[in-house]
Amino acid sequence: MIISEISRTDFELFWPVFKSVVLAQETYAFDPAIEFESAYNLWCLLPQKTYVIKEKDTILGSYYIKPNAAGPSAHISNCGYMVSPESRGKGIARKLCLHSQQIAVELGFSAMQFNSVVSSNDIAVKLWQKLGYEIIGTIPKAYKHKTLGFVDSFIMHKQLNV
Amino acid sequence: MIISEISRTDFELFWPVFKSVVLAQETYAFDPAIEFESAYNLWCLLPQKTYVIKEKDTILGSYYIKPNAAGPSAHISNCGYMVSPESRGKGIARKLCLHSQQIAVELGFSAMQFNSVVSSNDIAVKLWQKLGYEIIGTIPKAYKHKTLGFVDSFIMHKQLNV
Repeated sequence: MIISEISRTDFELFWPVFKSVVLAQETYAFDPAIEFESAYNLWCLLPQKTYVIKEKDTILGSYYIKPNAAGPSAHISNCGYMVSPESRGKGIARKLCLHSQQIAVELGFSAMQFNSVVSSNDIAVKLWQKLGYEIIGTIPKAYKHKTLGFVDSFIMHKQLNV
Repeated sequence: MIISEISRTDFELFWPVFKSVVLAQETYAFDPAIEFESAYNLWCLLPQKTYVIKEKDTILGSYYIKPNAAGPSAHISNCGYMVSPESRGKGIARKLCLHSQQIAVELGFSAMQFNSVVSSNDIAVKLWQKLGYEIIGTIPKAYKHKTLGFVDSFIMHKQLNV
């Protein structure tokens, strides 16, 4: 498996996964009706960097990294990760997260924050905790889950060792 | 005092205040080197709506309102408020916040969230609490305050009665 910076062609290949994740309305606070160009802008152009993880020519997942705020809070990074449904349970999210922490430090960030981890997304919450992220806040009824209705979201944070 | 939607001319008049607030590095996580056009974009164009409060032709303060996230979390609004140094202690922030809550409900939002209330900004924290916002999370060392160094930021939230 190789992690590299994303190209537009990579994102075109990844687009069906992106679209299905957003349509599921279980994890991401993106507009489920988002179209390709907006998604490309949001995932690949607005962030500071975006990566894909590939096995041969198959894209297994992707993540972006960006400052979570500017000026006096620009030392905190923010990342979002997506793994294709076929590649789940293979430690891809873990690999991407570890990679992102290293990149964050290389880019000069000293912390990482996730602004909205849907509380019903047990697998993600537990994985982030295992990787050293703490729940530092709970937003009540923050996410309208497709099947569960309104559920809380967690804000998670990790100080990076620099 | 009148609260109305901001015009570009209003923002030009407000710009020295905006710039001084950002340069102070005590409250806002904006780049202190921000220039006029970026600030105008950030404060007036990207948000859903932006308002000013005026007395005669003097602008006393301003706030923006926007969704804090999209899709399944688009029911939570986010606002930012700025009051000119000469107008502090006159209840301007309180007026703006009450106005913003009413506008939020009119726009269909059912909650409001502040993502980074600098913990050393006692006056703001106490005012938001008085107006019904709760601290739902604390981000450690989130803000590099110009004189105090790294201080925590609070995430604050209020369910709006709809």
